[in-house]
Amino acid sequence: MAHTAQGDARRALGSLELAVDLVPEGETRLSREIAQQAVGGRALRYDKAGEEHYNVVSAFIKSMRASDADAAVYWLARMLEAGEDVDFVARRIVIFAAEDVGNAEPQALPVAVAASQAAHQIGMPEAVLPLTQAALFLALAPKSNTALTAYANARKDVLRAGSLEVPLAVRNAVTPLMREAQYGVGYKYPHDFEGGVVPGNESYLPEALRGQRYAHPGPRGWEAAAWARLQQLREGTGEGGEPGLRASERWGGER
Amino acid sequence: MAHTAQGDARRALGSLELAVDLVPEGETRLSREIAQQAVGGRALRYDKAGEEHYNVVSAFIKSMRASDADAAVYWLARMLEAGEDVDFVARRIVIFAAEDVGNAEPQALPVAVAASQAAHQIGMPEAVLPLTQAALFLALAPKSNTALTAYANARKDVLRAGSLEVPLAVRNAVTPLMREAQYGVGYKYPHDFEGGVVPGNESYLPEALRGQRYAHPGPRGWEAAAWARLQQLREGTGEGGEPGLRASERWGGER
Amino acid sequence: MAHTAQGDARRALGSLELAVDLVPEGETRLSREIAQQAVGGRALRYDKAGEEHYNVVSAFIKSMRASDADAAVYWLARMLEAGEDVDFVARRIVIFAAEDVGNAEPQALPVAVAASQAAHQIGMPEAVLPLTQAALFLALAPKSNTALTAYANARKDVLRAGSLEVPLAVRNAVTPLMREAQYGVGYKYPHDFEGGVVPGNESYLPEALRGQRYAHPGPRGWEAAAWARLQQLREGTGEGGEPGLRASERWGGER
Amino acid sequence: MAHTAQGDARRALGSLELAVDLVPEGETRLSREIAQQAVGGRALRYDKAGEEHYNVVSAFIKSMRASDADAAVYWLARMLEAGEDVDFVARRIVIFAAEDVGNAEPQALPVAVAASQAAHQIGMPEAVLPLTQAALFLALAPKSNTALTAYANARKDVLRAGSLEVPLAVRNAVTPLMREAQYGVGYKYPHDFEGGVVPGNESYLPEALRGQRYAHPGPRGWEAAAWARLQQLREGTGEGGEPGLRASERWGGER
Repeated sequence: MAHTAQGDARRALGSLELAVDLVPEGETRLSREIAQQAVGGRALRYDKAGEEHYNVVSAFIKSMRASDADAAVYWLARMLEAGEDVDFVARRIVIFAAEDVGNAEPQALPVAVAASQAAHQIGMPEAVLPLTQAALFLALAPKSNTALTAYANARKDVLRAGSLEVPLAVRNAVTPLMREAQYGVGYKYPHDFEGGVVPGNESYLPEALRGQRYAHPGPRGWEAAAWARLQQLREGTGEGGEPGLRASERWGGER
Repeated sequence: MAHTAQGDARRALGSLELAVDLVPEGETRLSREIAQQAVGGRALRYDKAGEEHYNVVSAFIKSMRASDADAAVYWLARMLEAGEDVDFVARRIVIFAAEDVGNAEPQALPVAVAASQAAHQIGMPEAVLPLTQAALFLALAPKSNTALTAYANARKDVLRAGSLEVPLAVRNAVTPLMREAQYGVGYKYPHDFEGGVVPGNESYLPEALRGQRYAHPGPRGWEAAAWARLQQLREGTGEGGEPGLRASERWGGER
Repeated sequence: MAHTAQGDARRALGSLELAVDLVPEGETRLSREIAQQAVGGRALRYDKAGEEHYNVVSAFIKSMRASDADAAVYWLARMLEAGEDVDFVARRIVIFAAEDVGNAEPQALPVAVAASQAAHQIGMPEAVLPLTQAALFLALAPKSNTALTAYANARKDVLRAGSLEVPLAVRNAVTPLMREAQYGVGYKYPHDFEGGVVPGNESYLPEALRGQRYAHPGPRGWEAAAWARLQQLREGTGEGGEPGLRASERWGGER
Repeated sequence: MAHTAQGDARRALGSLELAVDLVPEGETRLSREIAQQAVGGRALRYDKAGEEHYNVVSAFIKSMRASDADAAVYWLARMLEAGEDVDFVARRIVIFAAEDVGNAEPQALPVAVAASQAAHQIGMPEAVLPLTQAALFLALAPKSNTALTAYANARKDVLRAGSLEVPLAVRNAVTPLMREAQYGVGYKYPHDFEGGVVPGNESYLPEALRGQRYAHPGPRGWEAAAWARLQQLREGTGEGGEPGLRASERWGGER
């Protein structure tokens, strides 16, 4: 240990601590074999700019996406024990929350952001705790990739079709000239209508894209319940506290 | 692409990436037409100080307000693909959460603030994910504009009536002189009363405004359930776990 | 308006804007009377260091505490229209969330902190929206002052009794000497027990204070349900998903 | 008081304030005895670098872990009245939320982080309020130490086994060379499958660790409900809104 520490007392102490951790329960002797493991442990292959770095991150993300809690925590430990930066890991967790859980469980984003801020605030080694909790939360939560697919769908039409005109109804008429040009004409303020929704199927997409769908209703959790609530409001079957509207009761179940 | 990139390799790479995205599924050739679309895509008409900028922002806000998830994501992509600043977009999303969803779904504000912090932390291009999730959440959530209307109502009376006297009962008696002047006399501490509410209809508005209503109970979600709970407490019909008090069960349904 | 603006164009514009707001609906003329109101509106009596300042803040806090949503928004507008600092108002809202709502509705603190961060991020005039939403949330939410009373109760014993010894069972035995001195002896790790709670009524207060109660169970919301859950676990009547344990179902109702 | 304040007016004022607090209710005279208590109160034995410091912190953490709300608030007051740094206390509360409550009550981490930010923002003496609320929340909440145990379990395998290869299926095939090397071959995108979960028991652990379990399902709250939901999805018994899937209804009860 003294040798491999190369004059760095903290590193030697770290090796010693690891070695003690590695002694099987019940035993009280630290064998040469375990000492060697402990010394080697710090040398986890992990080059921040190298390919292995990206492979481990990829495995971490895909384990959470597969709802594989065990693998998620394993790959998290691979990163953090190799000295990966806490903020880098937190950033990936926050991205994952929006990309793969999203509105199926809207608590996920605030939980991930809180874990990220907590990890930054408390630093290592305790930072592993909020990061592990967040990774487990995301692995166990219902999944939705609607944010990813909806944006990708819309982006294609944006790039294909370019700068289509903003419909007059949704322009702000700030000057008299704009009012004369019919800005804002025909706009209906949803708060003035029953249920907070204008009846019918108005669309605020540009003329050429009317009827396009980018955000496909996810089948799980809050997202599913919210789409169902809206659908019923639009069909006029959802007023008066009907069971169909109780988003909170259905939240958490599959549709 | 080399020509339009004007010596900027990142821009050329961006055009190439867009072009690949635009190739229809199943095809493997990049046609001249698609290449031209890709080159033009970056040139989305969007002058940050110009009128088109305000029209697109207005369309984004009004699409969320209309619970039109598809249009909301489309206009979001229009802004971000044109190079709009992530923090500017996040700011509008946070304002919207308070202005148009509010206490109908009190999770909206923390979700929007978390998305804003996440987008700032992770930067583009991944920032599109939390921003899209938040835009979808807000488009799908039940709506309330009570924060806007209540403040506007109260503001009018503030401006009309000027600095009306603060009722003695709600002044803090910090000095003996203040106590002599009857500061705090008649104040009742609500925590001392059943249900945490002083019976009767006390009002802490200035004398001249007693009976004015600024905050009209919104008909949806948490807000509706909370008003109903208070109403029942004040009428003395809400003690003992009566069904009428179960805010959590009604939350999500229309009243 | 030109006269009262004293060469400040922004101020003149502000007066004009106010005046337009004050014209009654249906009318199209701006009378001299309204113009005078508008000019006077900016002169709301409000000296940040003066007594009126404290009276208005006191009225704002006490209106929220009295669940008087109308008065809460009125006093909020009195502060903000008089030019009060957004961060000062946000700070009072955050304090109130912990002092008067607390764990009766644990969402209140995150909502208040989110509103505070949102108001800081977006600035005036839009900052009135998250601040109004938070004020309404807090006025409508069930109330608990347990954080205030529990701390005050404990503080008295701390000051009266001084530095009483930390019980050996809850000391960390970091060195062999400490272990010899019986540090940590008798400590039971709650996670090892059914329900996550050690059976019996262990207390980790200093010897001389055993049996003291500082935190009296509040009768409302999450707090009430959480105390009931614990009570049942300790009495051994709460295993197996008994109805009494379902905190989420009772949350929002009175006990 | 003048004597012990040693020329520091704030300290003298603090002593006076304490003395008034210590006068028993109903009495109006400040006795010499109480004055001495008040003067001594500030001298709480508390050396930030010393052993007593660590004993008090240890007692605070263990009281919350034991769901002993009274002791938790007492030790919190011991720290804060002795002049402990608000951010230090907040940091311990945030760590505790992840270490001892975790996903049994996922609100705990956002509540703790919000309390930490609130305490930092508002400063002493009001900072005691969000810190007390958070300490009570954590003491009363259902407990889980899964983040701690799961990370510790995984870490041991990481240290024992070293840099095991990342399975090909979960590597990102960024270059043609990587694709030739079978990177990403066999990867299944969970969002493409019913319930968002790939059927069967795929594992993304390294070959040599297949079948290892690090994250043992906690028996309480959200965590228990989420594991049950996943289990049912994997067994194919959880589609169609079956009661077994309703995480929100079970959340808060023991399994």
